Amino acid sequence: MSKKLITRQEDYSKWYNELVVKADLAENSAVRGCMVIKPYGYAIWEKMQAELDRKFKETGHENAYFPLFVPKSLFEAEEKNAEGFAKECAVVTHYRLKTDPADSSKLIVDPDAKLEEELIVRPTSEAIIWNTYKGWIQSYRDLPILINQWANVVRWEMRTRLFLRTAEFLWQEGHTAHATKAEAIAETEQMNNIYAEFAENFMAIPVIKGTKTANERFAGAEETYCIEALMQDGKALQAGTSHFLGQNFAKAFDVKFATKEGRLEYVWATSWGVSTRLMGALVMTHSDDQGLVLPPNLAPIQVVIVPIYKGEEQLAQISEVANKLASELRSNGVSVKYDDRDTHKPGWKFAQYEMKGVPVRIAIGPKDLEKGSVELARRDILSKEIVPQTEVVEKVKGLMVEIQDNLFNRAANYRDSHITEVDSYAEFKEVLKNKGGFISAHWDGTSETELKIKEQTKATIRCIPINAEKEEGVCVLTGKPSSQRVLFAKAY
Amino acid sequence: MSKKLITRQEDYSKWYNELVVKADLAENSAVRGCMVIKPYGYAIWEKMQAELDRKFKETGHENAYFPLFVPKSLFEAEEKNAEGFAKECAVVTHYRLKTDPADSSKLIVDPDAKLEEELIVRPTSEAIIWNTYKGWIQSYRDLPILINQWANVVRWEMRTRLFLRTAEFLWQEGHTAHATKAEAIAETEQMNNIYAEFAENFMAIPVIKGTKTANERFAGAEETYCIEALMQDGKALQAGTSHFLGQNFAKAFDVKFATKEGRLEYVWATSWGVSTRLMGALVMTHSDDQGLVLPPNLAPIQVVIVPIYKGEEQLAQISEVANKLASELRSNGVSVKYDDRDTHKPGWKFAQYEMKGVPVRIAIGPKDLEKGSVELARRDILSKEIVPQTEVVEKVKGLMVEIQDNLFNRAANYRDSHITEVDSYAEFKEVLKNKGGFISAHWDGTSETELKIKEQTKATIRCIPINAEKEEGVCVLTGKPSSQRVLFAKAY
Repeated sequence: MSKKLITRQEDYSKWYNELVVKADLAENSAVRGCMVIKPYGYAIWEKMQAELDRKFKETGHENAYFPLFVPKSLFEAEEKNAEGFAKECAVVTHYRLKTDPADSSKLIVDPDAKLEEELIVRPTSEAIIWNTYKGWIQSYRDLPILINQWANVVRWEMRTRLFLRTAEFLWQEGHTAHATKAEAIAETEQMNNIYAEFAENFMAIPVIKGTKTANERFAGAEETYCIEALMQDGKALQAGTSHFLGQNFAKAFDVKFATKEGRLEYVWATSWGVSTRLMGALVMTHSDDQGLVLPPNLAPIQVVIVPIYKGEEQLAQISEVANKLASELRSNGVSVKYDDRDTHKPGWKFAQYEMKGVPVRIAIGPKDLEKGSVELARRDILSKEIVPQTEVVEKVKGLMVEIQDNLFNRAANYRDSHITEVDSYAEFKEVLKNKGGFISAHWDGTSETELKIKEQTKATIRCIPINAEKEEGVCVLTGKPSSQRVLFAKAY
Repeated sequence: MSKKLITRQEDYSKWYNELVVKADLAENSAVRGCMVIKPYGYAIWEKMQAELDRKFKETGHENAYFPLFVPKSLFEAEEKNAEGFAKECAVVTHYRLKTDPADSSKLIVDPDAKLEEELIVRPTSEAIIWNTYKGWIQSYRDLPILINQWANVVRWEMRTRLFLRTAEFLWQEGHTAHATKAEAIAETEQMNNIYAEFAENFMAIPVIKGTKTANERFAGAEETYCIEALMQDGKALQAGTSHFLGQNFAKAFDVKFATKEGRLEYVWATSWGVSTRLMGALVMTHSDDQGLVLPPNLAPIQVVIVPIYKGEEQLAQISEVANKLASELRSNGVSVKYDDRDTHKPGWKFAQYEMKGVPVRIAIGPKDLEKGSVELARRDILSKEIVPQTEVVEKVKGLMVEIQDNLFNRAANYRDSHITEVDSYAEFKEVLKNKGGFISAHWDGTSETELKIKEQTKATIRCIPINAEKEEGVCVLTGKPSSQRVLFAKAY
């Protein structure tokens, strides 16, 4: 913990990897591509979960739980979805091990315990859920179904990075069923709006709402809505998606309902999800070369108090002040840790809590006892000031709001100053190379052009912004007509 | 939903299966042995989770998340644990599907995507966790580690039943690491006590605390503590276990720590868990031939209000009263549903909420409008009374406590009257056959005797009760000396 991070300037990618481990968020495990989420990281994820869960329930959704495994025959039922995930799915083929006849201390797969049908570890649950909904839906009275699931999913990615891309990750996946297309689209949009609100107001991460191009759409969706954030290295990160699935899954699993008028119609579907990937977005939006920076809303510890003392007697005096402050702060809803461990020096503790992104640090030493003051440090701007003990509670309460706002504004300023309008392909490549960020450019609307640009520059269309102004122009690559700018970027 | 249940008398096992489905708790899925937990069932599980999570955190535990998969080489590291779970574990052998050359609409396992080392879907996480702890523990300063995980696990059971025994289930598993044996044993006991408190005070399920015999111990444990409940059919159900693992896993994964004095010692371990099996215990402890009976603490809906009306105008008048009552109840912390759907008749609704175990039902009809009253029905004793509207809130607040207590007492009376002391094997068999329940008998302490009794009667030793009186006696089977009675029963 005492070792410093490499700086973002020196090596952004390495900085991220080091930070995630040194801030005790997560680490790689013995299973290729799978991570261990450590208690400190998990506590942040729990705060995200609680807030999202509240928002889902507030909008009428209920939680449920569906099986981890998808039988191969169900997995392949919706063709595009199956095709989209077949190349990266973990397959269970056997259900028993036995002692190795060649070495009795070893176990081998028992060839007699082969499954009749292979099971896919869910990469996403549309197939198993729509196969279930088939039994739940007969008439319009059974609709809508508004269900969310908190679960683990597995996608056997070849290149993995903690939180950003892992073979197993945690997420929530909403799966809803509706009687009409309009209602399903409204649900899709509502959930994308909830994600945007959550990202901005709770995580202090500014996002752009948009829809994906056909190339970037979820496999099996007719339209994918998304929120796109911008990281400090100028790369975009897709932070959440909400899919309008049309009647694709209803048709694949033959899910029909009787309308009020007695006609049989296919059901309309949506699905939407955010994952532990948000932890990566959090790290890369706010943190600095000293370590993690947390918005107060997500901080497991909002205020840490560190005593600076010589000898037991001084510690006792400081502890009296510290415990009183801690208890006052707690009764004002602020989470506080008083770290009076004698196994570590104050300087070590300062560095540790800086690394872990604790928003406010209060230090109390002998001089503070004399003067009735404390030293208060803000993690977001790395500032320090002397504050009278009597003013600490009000000061901290104000800071909880101020720091949250400051982090959002700082990230929004960075993002806004990294959306560049370009009108030629030369400029496009120049901005991408020297500045990064989102490039707002005209595009002729074809997958062909999009793929060519991707091949040549590694930039993809992150989204077609919602409610963007219409503007006549010509495609930066082909010169063909275009009626709206879209956002390109290199992306995580 | 309108169809009645088979009675417990007629077929207890079928009654349970029907109830779980008809009360909308869970259903079987397309995956053999795996269940779908429906929103109503999941809402009950969420209440259990919230209360347990609170208790775990209150006692200093933190949540974290470890991988779903265990590489075979880690899985087999602790011999007894591996042996105990090898016969029922799902094995991932491949990581990709490809189009079937014989039929392009089908997918097959891609033989080129075989894993170098097979991955076991965790049946329990000691192996992967202790392999991780190895990297976290160097000195006594790193101890204790007090971690819990909420997760899904898979055990490929041949005979499955909803909640009671499923191939995949949800659970929490605590995994702690300690510097001393005494501390680890204290943790094991503490967690078993927490489970007992939770079962009795939150779920209204009386339990007996005890330890398991060597035969029934967790694979890899030195001592297994448990809580044992008694179902209405006289069969016991293990509702939670807490294991003292000694240094077995520390030795298997070479996890040592430097003591204060600088010696290197193996770490002491515990693990403890409860699962969605508790849902089965809940159903079988309280429910009756009309359906589920829920203790108020676990009821997603504590009070349902049903209007009985003819025409819109009457409904409007009733709704005014109902909404006022609902809002008053809610501001007193009671969860209320006002079911004014016009698609179903009151009788249908009554039967539905009875099936779903809603503790209190309030019906409001035209006569109640005149008299300023409501009809209030208790689900636990199936009673009805007329209550003045002005007294409803106080009445319901009282009932929330009364019903909770009544359910516990009813179950405790049943349990207590089904613990039979026997002193001969003839009596043992007679009681087991004609009465069921726990049989308190002397046993000579050998696995041989225990297995013989199991073979002959299907009864096993559920536990050696903690703090039971010492009493000299002779084993019911062998006549050999014994110093304490143990509890036998047939079990789920």
